Amino acid sequence: MALNKAPYKGTRDFFPAEMRLRNFIFHKMAEVSEQYAYEPYDGPLLEEVELYLAKSGEELINDQIYSFIDRGDRKVAIRPEMTPTLARMVAQVHREVVKPIRMYAIPNLMRYEKPQKGRLREFWQYNADIFGAGVLGEMEIIQLSISLLKSFGANAAQFSIHINDRRLVDHIFHTMIGLDDASNKKLYKLVDRKNKMPAEKFATEVRTIIADEAKAKIFESYTALSTPEEIKNFVGETPILEIFKHVGDLGLSEYVKFDPSIVRGLDYYTGLVFEIFDKHPDNNRAIAGGGAYANLLQIFNEPSLEGVGIGLGEVPLTEFLKAHGLMPDHSKVSIDYLVAYIHPEAENMAMMFASNLRSKYGLKVEVMLGEAKPKKVFSYSEKKNVGSICFFGDEEVKGQSVRVKDVAARTEEILGLEEFYKKLGTE
Amino acid sequence: MALNKAPYKGTRDFFPAEMRLRNFIFHKMAEVSEQYAYEPYDGPLLEEVELYLAKSGEELINDQIYSFIDRGDRKVAIRPEMTPTLARMVAQVHREVVKPIRMYAIPNLMRYEKPQKGRLREFWQYNADIFGAGVLGEMEIIQLSISLLKSFGANAAQFSIHINDRRLVDHIFHTMIGLDDASNKKLYKLVDRKNKMPAEKFATEVRTIIADEAKAKIFESYTALSTPEEIKNFVGETPILEIFKHVGDLGLSEYVKFDPSIVRGLDYYTGLVFEIFDKHPDNNRAIAGGGAYANLLQIFNEPSLEGVGIGLGEVPLTEFLKAHGLMPDHSKVSIDYLVAYIHPEAENMAMMFASNLRSKYGLKVEVMLGEAKPKKVFSYSEKKNVGSICFFGDEEVKGQSVRVKDVAARTEEILGLEEFYKKLGTE
Repeated sequence: MALNKAPYKGTRDFFPAEMRLRNFIFHKMAEVSEQYAYEPYDGPLLEEVELYLAKSGEELINDQIYSFIDRGDRKVAIRPEMTPTLARMVAQVHREVVKPIRMYAIPNLMRYEKPQKGRLREFWQYNADIFGAGVLGEMEIIQLSISLLKSFGANAAQFSIHINDRRLVDHIFHTMIGLDDASNKKLYKLVDRKNKMPAEKFATEVRTIIADEAKAKIFESYTALSTPEEIKNFVGETPILEIFKHVGDLGLSEYVKFDPSIVRGLDYYTGLVFEIFDKHPDNNRAIAGGGAYANLLQIFNEPSLEGVGIGLGEVPLTEFLKAHGLMPDHSKVSIDYLVAYIHPEAENMAMMFASNLRSKYGLKVEVMLGEAKPKKVFSYSEKKNVGSICFFGDEEVKGQSVRVKDVAARTEEILGLEEFYKKLGTE
Repeated sequence: MALNKAPYKGTRDFFPAEMRLRNFIFHKMAEVSEQYAYEPYDGPLLEEVELYLAKSGEELINDQIYSFIDRGDRKVAIRPEMTPTLARMVAQVHREVVKPIRMYAIPNLMRYEKPQKGRLREFWQYNADIFGAGVLGEMEIIQLSISLLKSFGANAAQFSIHINDRRLVDHIFHTMIGLDDASNKKLYKLVDRKNKMPAEKFATEVRTIIADEAKAKIFESYTALSTPEEIKNFVGETPILEIFKHVGDLGLSEYVKFDPSIVRGLDYYTGLVFEIFDKHPDNNRAIAGGGAYANLLQIFNEPSLEGVGIGLGEVPLTEFLKAHGLMPDHSKVSIDYLVAYIHPEAENMAMMFASNLRSKYGLKVEVMLGEAKPKKVFSYSEKKNVGSICFFGDEEVKGQSVRVKDVAARTEEILGLEEFYKKLGTE
């Protein structure tokens, strides 16, 4: 029976056109990260499941993780997120290395999801994190996120960063409303689903957690908060106000807004939490998220070290860039020179010529393997982005020369080989 | 109980120093591949196990594959090699795309191996393949492999490509010695292990497969073959002689030698087979291998299309480069400008300055978050490769200027901000 030609459900084959797009995106991510002095890292594809049990949250563990028992009886999982791996790595070195620690990675992750628009089972996720830098680190992650999206040509009309702060939410839920830990957790989960349910249903469910009318009003006032001034009037000084001040000083206010419905599903956040929203009417969804976590190192018996990070998946980012016409065309391969020859006798001359262009000048050179007539060479060249065609026919072999056709300019000349190399060297 | 800080057995944490090394290697692989007009691709991390059952060989399937049943009852495996995925992808498109098809990838693969020097459970493997180009494609893969190693600075004294050809071996084993398919397969497996056993043991085992004395002599003559002339005298015209001719024409003879003990373990090879050997006395082992396969598309019910490829793992490549002193130092991060400030009042000026350098000039700029005295800044800068330190103290804030210290030249000057930007723009 013939085997299936399709990729495994929820995963993708990256043919060259898609792979060039992916490379374009990953190169921008690396470039902007390194402009901020973030250093590259990576971890293993597999981790012991225990690592995720500690802090990742129930949905991820129960429904989404790809886990199995290995041949040595270890319970392992294909990484569904990168932060636990990063925390494990930082736990190994944080005593010796200079702080703050700035790291970025673009790992492939897997989650057992129902494949849908912007969501797949295998995806790559940009992660940038900074450890040991407090509120200034939270600010820098926001700043870096904005720079990254701007590097693709996006602007404040196209995306917006919705921020909140678990220190603020905890203060309101615990101290002002007086919820115990269990109710607090329930309310978090409810707020996290707020935008996925009708307003009345949300209000009803709030009352099942907060019975007291006056306290429910406090919660309602919280959900109505919008500006830093309102937050200040409601709770007094709190770290998110510092973040807003820094954001304002950096001239980035138009990108950032307070959003009380952002609390994030993962259990480990303790400070800033944020999501980046696409403002396009057809694609109005979160394309990235992140936050600050103070206690992740404790699961390794290490003292706490505050960290903050962003996770940005290439799938929603690609949807975002496409929706706003920010995705360049990568459909054809680009070649500097297409080298072809008409007779077996010219083959060796053409091969050596191509070798020289590659090794001495670093050029992208395709040799048409096998003999080819000029007409065939030209029609072949139209399927690729070819700079020039270099042809070796009878005349050229005799004259130790090459016929060079500039494809864009539609000009053709015959040059001695030495002359050609000389010209190339001075360009 | 505290969680384990170590990575899963046989896998690695890539801290920035190691990751920069990995990136250095991958960038060279991509660069040289694109100089040969090979196009990038990637496939899924998971494939259905069936894909490997068809052609990958028993050892891989029985002992080395990471396979499990997914939540939808599919039997899947983490990819242990890339060629079957590539064949699956090419099977989808080969009717429409222009040939030859040239592709390269650097996927992460997993095999359940006993971790040892040069061998790990998770590793990345460079793969380059060309489809539909016959013997010239086989030549090009050899040429590309040599260019890739040369791009790292390696030379013919450091590595050597040992080649053989299954068409030649099949002709000798089947036609000249007269083995049936089962014995033929046994002899292949034995030859594949030749260099891992004493010569006498090998000779004894050969006699268990080839009982006839005259035929055993033919086999002995085969194992003594060394030059193209000897091959020609032994069997007449055969494709590997064409490969040797092309290699000679390209001036690459010093890199390539015939080796009758190379047959390769994978079942799917049908033409050229090769391994690249490190010549270093302390590390004398194969660092890469590959070959030609004509029939891989048939498992998808597609007509055959000849392909040839190389697989080069980053683990043995790294050992090779280290053994020959070809690995540059990537231990420290490189930063163009380290920006620091002494007072909270200077913070905003420093931040905006850094922002400008990044977004307008594409520079790598680290801001020291929080106030810092010049002495602290200087000692911090010594832990990284810093080009210049830009400092904002009281004076600089007042004068809208910046104090710039060139770390290598040990010079310092105070420049007006406009003056500084102007200077930067003309550099």
